[in-house]
Amino acid sequence: MENENLLKQISFIKEIDKIKYIQRRTKLFNSDRNENDAEHSWHLAMMAIVLAEHANEPVDVLKVLKMVLIHDIVEIDAGDTFIYDTAKDHSNTDEELIAAKRIFGMLPKEQAEEFIAIWEEFEEGKTNEAKFARSMDRFEPLLQNTSNKGGTWAELNVDYQRVYDKKKVINEGSTSIWNYSENLLNECVDKGILKK
Amino acid sequence: MENENLLKQISFIKEIDKIKYIQRRTKLFNSDRNENDAEHSWHLAMMAIVLAEHANEPVDVLKVLKMVLIHDIVEIDAGDTFIYDTAKDHSNTDEELIAAKRIFGMLPKEQAEEFIAIWEEFEEGKTNEAKFARSMDRFEPLLQNTSNKGGTWAELNVDYQRVYDKKKVINEGSTSIWNYSENLLNECVDKGILKK
Repeated sequence: MENENLLKQISFIKEIDKIKYIQRRTKLFNSDRNENDAEHSWHLAMMAIVLAEHANEPVDVLKVLKMVLIHDIVEIDAGDTFIYDTAKDHSNTDEELIAAKRIFGMLPKEQAEEFIAIWEEFEEGKTNEAKFARSMDRFEPLLQNTSNKGGTWAELNVDYQRVYDKKKVINEGSTSIWNYSENLLNECVDKGILKK
Repeated sequence: MENENLLKQISFIKEIDKIKYIQRRTKLFNSDRNENDAEHSWHLAMMAIVLAEHANEPVDVLKVLKMVLIHDIVEIDAGDTFIYDTAKDHSNTDEELIAAKRIFGMLPKEQAEEFIAIWEEFEEGKTNEAKFARSMDRFEPLLQNTSNKGGTWAELNVDYQRVYDKKKVINEGSTSIWNYSENLLNECVDKGILKK
């Protein structure tokens, strides 16, 4: 007899393959190739493991990993919203919640509830784990754009102040990473790849 | 003053971006697009979280995640060795060890040592965590090839027995996933997408 949980879990595993096709606006390091959501999520997971010692408060790394690994799965239904898109709010939309319920809902009940709760905790950004996970999510494209002569900032004419306002949330997760980031943004201004 | 650890960690984070360019032989689900190592590693991490309850022995999920997230980083220097390649052994080669020491060696000393040890533990496949992580690494392409009418098995004329011999290691990590896998392999034979 087949294991009912296992069958549900395998359906979910096949479904989430789709995030490999979701293109982000940001490019890979020193590259003109767009990053996809699976690559991005892998990179955030690696960053969370490697940089955990810099979190402002002690974090449960396993929970942070779950957050960054699943945070973009809702985009399978809801699509990627670009952070500097002024027409659409990037915050937790109804569309994303419906997506979370459909996709995580493919899992056995308890697991589905756990995944929805973790995704909501990440979106709300209030716990230590969510703050640190969100700082990783802002830090990766900052490094990428810096490596790409301004990347999406240059491409879409986003100025220093708008970048600064989006990135300063890094400080809630890690002050040392924020200090590094602020220096990097100032260097970008000095080099002329970010307009003040 | 800059934080010395942080600078080393950021160099490592930039370096590992390269695994996004390493193409595997296996294709995405229902697709003719090759999977890359970052996408593969993300998928194994998701599988490990979702399927942990099926491990034969209780596993430290955080350690399993570290294993699957880093296991292919050595391929930045050593390249991807295809599992059915008879000319080159897939086991832990000298080339891979040199790669591990160079790439993980970019990290602060203690972290470098931890990563090398975790990678070696995965390669040796003896602990509960390594057995389960390795079963994920064999199970994902089995699901992918099945979805792709035999995928790399058909493409490279790999018969049932050779697939079976490579896949049976899944049983060491999870007997219930192995039972599912064995049924799937038999179905593939029945459908004529795997030759006996």
